[in-house]
Amino acid sequence: MIRFCCQCAGPVRHEIPPGDNRLRALCPNCGHIQYENPRLVVGCIAEYEEHILLCRRAIEPRKGFWTLPAGFMENGESTAAAAARETFEEACAVVDQLRPFALVSVPHISQVHLFFHGHLSEGRHAPGEESQATRLFSPCEIPSQVLAFRSVRYALERYLVDRECGHFAFHETELTPQFSG
Amino acid sequence: MIRFCCQCAGPVRHEIPPGDNRLRALCPNCGHIQYENPRLVVGCIAEYEEHILLCRRAIEPRKGFWTLPAGFMENGESTAAAAARETFEEACAVVDQLRPFALVSVPHISQVHLFFHGHLSEGRHAPGEESQATRLFSPCEIPSQVLAFRSVRYALERYLVDRECGHFAFHETELTPQFSG
Repeated sequence: MIRFCCQCAGPVRHEIPPGDNRLRALCPNCGHIQYENPRLVVGCIAEYEEHILLCRRAIEPRKGFWTLPAGFMENGESTAAAAARETFEEACAVVDQLRPFALVSVPHISQVHLFFHGHLSEGRHAPGEESQATRLFSPCEIPSQVLAFRSVRYALERYLVDRECGHFAFHETELTPQFSG
Repeated sequence: MIRFCCQCAGPVRHEIPPGDNRLRALCPNCGHIQYENPRLVVGCIAEYEEHILLCRRAIEPRKGFWTLPAGFMENGESTAAAAARETFEEACAVVDQLRPFALVSVPHISQVHLFFHGHLSEGRHAPGEESQATRLFSPCEIPSQVLAFRSVRYALERYLVDRECGHFAFHETELTPQFSG
């Protein structure tokens, strides 16, 4: 919750500005409106010789669980660049041939998760700072009982189905808050 | 640029926090880190009887130019819900059967534009507060010389090509800063 104006340090009011229809953090002193918007989490299904790269998380939330390399998109980068950067940071892995694969809205935490499908260059990977381990899994080895997040499960499930069919489509869904993640 | 902490009103420092690799607005007083991330702009290609709904903008930027209904995604909603809401706000139009169609990264302004393709219910539309006019255009009528934004042009171009082919794919691109928009 925003309490003070980031421009003049005055206390903000939570009001609906003229011409708007939502509560915003409004500064009565300098007039600045501080908007809050959903964050994009971008990740990658990196494939090498029919295996998929997963990372075991070294940090909370879901420490010890397996996930696709993914993280918050940063200002000044494209979605594909963000997916490649996160894959490098979390799994020391270089990916190319990135194509968008799945979009998962998680409105109760104001996040949008976007997964690309890409090729893992030379099959090389190693744990980055936020990973305990990285490993290439064949489809039947994927540890579906210990995946970190529901959006990761969704992307992997769709990926495996598409792979069986021999055609990769683009998938979209919305997660409701009945489970954590 | 963030100058003061939104939690305690203290002056922030722009430093790289431990374990991070980017400059953040860090509060030395209370320890709060204020992250800034790209914003999602979500819109809709709303179709009715082979016509497409466009809005003539009543506000800057690009006042008077034609655009697809689109706007900033809000906290607590899905991408599809955001596309439907923007279409209703800007064109008083109800859409259904929404499917993701195009993703456009605009890194130099830290935005990601996401367009859905949907069906305009009963063909009804009217200008919302931010539109001077709304109109259904046949493909050959689309005012391509007076479109408001390059991402809108990209989405419409891909849409028209896909329609010719009889198959709607999902498209992705990145815009570089050589032109405005």
